[in-house]
Amino acid sequence: MKCIINYSTSCDFPIENLPYGVFSTKDETTLNKFMSLQSKAWKEAREKIQELLSVNSAALQDQNIRKRAFTPQSEAIMHLPAAIGDYTDFYSSIHHATNVGIMFRSKENALMPNWYLFNNLQTHRENNYYCRKYLPVGYHGRASSVVVSNTAIKRPYGQTLPVDGAAPVFGPCKLMDFELEMAFFVGGLPTKLGEPVKIDEAQDHIFGFVIMNDWSARDIQKWEYVPLGPFTSKNLGTSISPWVVTTLALDAFKVENFPQNPPPFEYLVHDDKYNFDINLEVNIIPNNSSVSTTICRSNYKYLYWTAKQQLTHHTITGCNLNPGDLMASGTISGETSDSFGSMLELSWKGTKPIKLNDGSDRKFLLDGDTVIMKAYCESDTYRIGFGSCVGKLLPAN
Amino acid sequence: MKCIINYSTSCDFPIENLPYGVFSTKDETTLNKFMSLQSKAWKEAREKIQELLSVNSAALQDQNIRKRAFTPQSEAIMHLPAAIGDYTDFYSSIHHATNVGIMFRSKENALMPNWYLFNNLQTHRENNYYCRKYLPVGYHGRASSVVVSNTAIKRPYGQTLPVDGAAPVFGPCKLMDFELEMAFFVGGLPTKLGEPVKIDEAQDHIFGFVIMNDWSARDIQKWEYVPLGPFTSKNLGTSISPWVVTTLALDAFKVENFPQNPPPFEYLVHDDKYNFDINLEVNIIPNNSSVSTTICRSNYKYLYWTAKQQLTHHTITGCNLNPGDLMASGTISGETSDSFGSMLELSWKGTKPIKLNDGSDRKFLLDGDTVIMKAYCESDTYRIGFGSCVGKLLPAN
Repeated sequence: MKCIINYSTSCDFPIENLPYGVFSTKDETTLNKFMSLQSKAWKEAREKIQELLSVNSAALQDQNIRKRAFTPQSEAIMHLPAAIGDYTDFYSSIHHATNVGIMFRSKENALMPNWYLFNNLQTHRENNYYCRKYLPVGYHGRASSVVVSNTAIKRPYGQTLPVDGAAPVFGPCKLMDFELEMAFFVGGLPTKLGEPVKIDEAQDHIFGFVIMNDWSARDIQKWEYVPLGPFTSKNLGTSISPWVVTTLALDAFKVENFPQNPPPFEYLVHDDKYNFDINLEVNIIPNNSSVSTTICRSNYKYLYWTAKQQLTHHTITGCNLNPGDLMASGTISGETSDSFGSMLELSWKGTKPIKLNDGSDRKFLLDGDTVIMKAYCESDTYRIGFGSCVGKLLPAN
Repeated sequence: MKCIINYSTSCDFPIENLPYGVFSTKDETTLNKFMSLQSKAWKEAREKIQELLSVNSAALQDQNIRKRAFTPQSEAIMHLPAAIGDYTDFYSSIHHATNVGIMFRSKENALMPNWYLFNNLQTHRENNYYCRKYLPVGYHGRASSVVVSNTAIKRPYGQTLPVDGAAPVFGPCKLMDFELEMAFFVGGLPTKLGEPVKIDEAQDHIFGFVIMNDWSARDIQKWEYVPLGPFTSKNLGTSISPWVVTTLALDAFKVENFPQNPPPFEYLVHDDKYNFDINLEVNIIPNNSSVSTTICRSNYKYLYWTAKQQLTHHTITGCNLNPGDLMASGTISGETSDSFGSMLELSWKGTKPIKLNDGSDRKFLLDGDTVIMKAYCESDTYRIGFGSCVGKLLPAN
């Protein structure tokens, strides 16, 4: 498909992509209404925009019309794509769940029974595809603290327990971390309380994806997360990339679902492919430096549960959904240590410092570090990119 | 204060109360804008309305004006008081936390270290006031599934683990429960990400209170809640009473805070009283019956953490708040078994069936049961009531 606009082959947003984002400065502008249209309207809009951008169409090749239709990037301030009614974070990478389990609990109790019924961590890696999985574990997050890329994040204060059995202390977080995630915006008509979304209708409620950095205060998290889950360790800020790449654009990059054996409960079974080959990377630029280091290369396809399964499970007891709701994948870690999606895993709880290209090393994030996450799909002919999700860590007050 | 309207002494809403609620049928009507005003505006509005309703004021004693100013209750359909941006549930009753801990884990591990550092459950009840408490534990809930009183709730389907060590099963919830809670609406200007609310400013963000029934699917909860907290076991629906009773109206019913010894961290310390003597009760009416049974009498004042401490802790790592956010207390259980705020505790996990006045008994809720929660403060001269929070449990699909 040839576009009237020239762009390089490494451009994230070719005519095959057409992501949606919000860049006006008007506070009230959001994509919620567009997301609330049914999926056939998303397709219609995409086809119309592609047609208008195609060299075969004259309309936007008129310079006057073009001027009115486009806004220079330099004049655009990006905002959150939608008013996020509710935000949910899943925990769908078995590699991440295993790593964190080993570090926060023990090898023997790494995966809770709902993840993995017969604990056998020695052979866990080998048994990855055969062990029993049941629940797409998730938890409700804080919608108000989801911010758009380029919003600075402040190192928080909080309670931690530095010494087991001693009294907890209060002070600045000492173990600041990122989590490499992707998240999808819910679309379609609002669903009704008490009416679960069937797995075969789930895709009609998945509008498109963004990159997410689920900033995490690890020491605060470890102290607070039992028994009701992470709370203040997560609501200090969650960053997302500003452009929503539609599931329609991702269609060409579908790959086999992660093998699920034995199969999950019937309400979660779907035969169609709903996994995506999306390359992911995390880069760190230290304070006052221009030297970037790629510290993680992962891929969306490592997730055990599909987005359809996440969404359907979310509604199984009757939870209602609204367009603009955000559902995140959980940290996307691969099997190898260079694909781990958090500092916690990359530095193995601080025991294996990560070397940066400027000569410094990291166990966790330092004040002034900028974390840059990127995501893209690539074919022989074009690239569907997500832009980037950027955030700088400011020192505590 | 003498009001121009006649009401009985058992009326929930005398001139000293003046709760806020939404009863228009217009979807867009909410109290968010009023809540976003600063606390002095809430006071001004209250004083003006009291003045207008007082027998000393002529304005509303004119029958024509009165007709235009009032709406007959029979014509009013109640709605949620506000668009709830984010909903949070705390876990602030030490009695409830202890009871659930014993049943879900064991006597030895009933309270996690963050609640109670040196576990000694044998002497726990005696040590109640002396044991160490640190964190106002809470978790993010699902805002979309908060519904107004009189919305029916459907028994959900979900995953459970009936036999430890065996495979989980999928089917209708068998252990449906209520949780007796109160919740407050956040008011005042939106706060900024990265800027915690100081404990001495917390009261300016507490607009008023409602009764809450945090419906809970216990068997689903038990299977899913580790390690990230309750998820689908809670987002099946959460009911609140429609009228927001302001903190100004509750001022006359302030009582001593629950003793906290040793004192909490400095950021949670406040010397002023911010606890309230609010009587609570839970009634059940079986299907096709008119016989109501009061199965629980509790009181808001049993909560260990104050609403100010909950709100401040919520923001300690930088979480931002918006007017219309809802923060719930967690189940309010007292020390004695008739004051436990859930079926789980009242029937002690089903081992002690509860006798109802119609002759039937209950371990957990049955289809068709209507749960009615009431709350009120009483002085010698007037009563500040909350109305009721009502919900009927419908059978699974």
